[in-house]
Amino acid sequence: MVPVPIGRVEGCVATQADDLLAVEEPLEIRLGERSLSITMRTPGNDFELAAGFLHSEGMIRHIAQIRSMGRPSDGDGNIAVVELEGEAQPHVQARRNFMMTSACGVCGKASLRDLEVNACPILPHDNIRLSPGVIYGLPEVLRRAQSVFESTGGLHAAALFNLQGELESLREDVGRHNAVDKLVGAALLERRPMSGSILLVSGRASFELVQKASMAGIPVMAAVGAPSSLAVATAERSHMTLIGFLRNGRFNVYSGGHRIAGLI
Amino acid sequence: MVPVPIGRVEGCVATQADDLLAVEEPLEIRLGERSLSITMRTPGNDFELAAGFLHSEGMIRHIAQIRSMGRPSDGDGNIAVVELEGEAQPHVQARRNFMMTSACGVCGKASLRDLEVNACPILPHDNIRLSPGVIYGLPEVLRRAQSVFESTGGLHAAALFNLQGELESLREDVGRHNAVDKLVGAALLERRPMSGSILLVSGRASFELVQKASMAGIPVMAAVGAPSSLAVATAERSHMTLIGFLRNGRFNVYSGGHRIAGLI
Repeated sequence: MVPVPIGRVEGCVATQADDLLAVEEPLEIRLGERSLSITMRTPGNDFELAAGFLHSEGMIRHIAQIRSMGRPSDGDGNIAVVELEGEAQPHVQARRNFMMTSACGVCGKASLRDLEVNACPILPHDNIRLSPGVIYGLPEVLRRAQSVFESTGGLHAAALFNLQGELESLREDVGRHNAVDKLVGAALLERRPMSGSILLVSGRASFELVQKASMAGIPVMAAVGAPSSLAVATAERSHMTLIGFLRNGRFNVYSGGHRIAGLI
Repeated sequence: MVPVPIGRVEGCVATQADDLLAVEEPLEIRLGERSLSITMRTPGNDFELAAGFLHSEGMIRHIAQIRSMGRPSDGDGNIAVVELEGEAQPHVQARRNFMMTSACGVCGKASLRDLEVNACPILPHDNIRLSPGVIYGLPEVLRRAQSVFESTGGLHAAALFNLQGELESLREDVGRHNAVDKLVGAALLERRPMSGSILLVSGRASFELVQKASMAGIPVMAAVGAPSSLAVATAERSHMTLIGFLRNGRFNVYSGGHRIAGLI
């Protein structure tokens, strides 16, 4: 956060004050010497973001494919340089002349046809069955853990919980897609499997967030806000449980209701 | 909006119900035969979105540069084909092999260096001076005009007001950048100048939204939520008035305070 001088206006009274702003800066992700993506992000956890992004976009399938991550020789803190073991996945080869961004969920797709070809993976079968009580409790745990949000109001949060509703990890960012990429990247770097985790996002559930969760193999995703039509369709196709409007002791289940006790 | 069957869980009770979802589908924008961008958007006002996007990204400077907009020959409703008069701006020529998206605010920039080179324009001098009372009233006018938001909770809104606080136009979308692109595109298509307009956005003020307002020549932007550090820096550089946390009869002024009566 950075402090800035502001004018505060209330009723007929204007006063000078200081306000704390969430920092937003561009991060360029490079594969070797080639610029792959620019995303506007909150600085910090940049290598998690890079790893999560590469995984979300299907450029790596396993963290061991990353040989190293670092800064360029001039030390620029807004650039993350990733070196892969061997070659990137074939479809990256074909498209690495294209500009990609993590904000769209359709990164690197040159056309609608490409988008359809690259369908999200289907989750393996599991025996997860969550009680509503566990789910109700998630937003409050997230809220308590969010120290930054309180002061700036400018950050999106994403968190992973285990099936008992205990917080595993939390990331915040000015871009909600970045918050999820950081969360997924951190789990990958720590070799924590996400097949028994619940993802909670502080805002709405868009296609891109469901797509990222699907690529990470997360079986249950919950959003405090509403899902979109394509988010629901994508969750259904991936056999993911998608929960929306999780607040005040209630929620809606949009797909994968078999993982919720009390629903068929 | 589309209705979907959901499970509604409250306390210990689960019921079957229907819910209305905001529709999210991909729009591919083509310049002639070349795919330029894919963005996830709420269908509708697609040509406004295309025109606003091209203007925001500096690919056109005037709406007259667009010769025609339409669908491809197969009638695909998720593709907008734009034909320009003559050639596109030179920097589009150089970069049109790159994938771009409207979600990043840094579209078509291959590196951080490109991002810095393409600074936002500086607004011409004006004599705008707004009373706080006009500004306080904007969110309520927006709220009353938002019919879709009430039922889905899934849409971002952007609206233009005149200097008396009267609503000029309103657009909603699952992507907040799209809502602003549609709003700007509509004004361009109707030849409505935006140099005497106030832009209100329902969420936070990010770099990309300030950048779009700057490209459109909008002198005052207000957000219901918080701005980011780069949003404030960009507004300052463009000499734009940036207002945040506009709610409950109060707001903060982050830049361009000379356009607010009562502030220096």
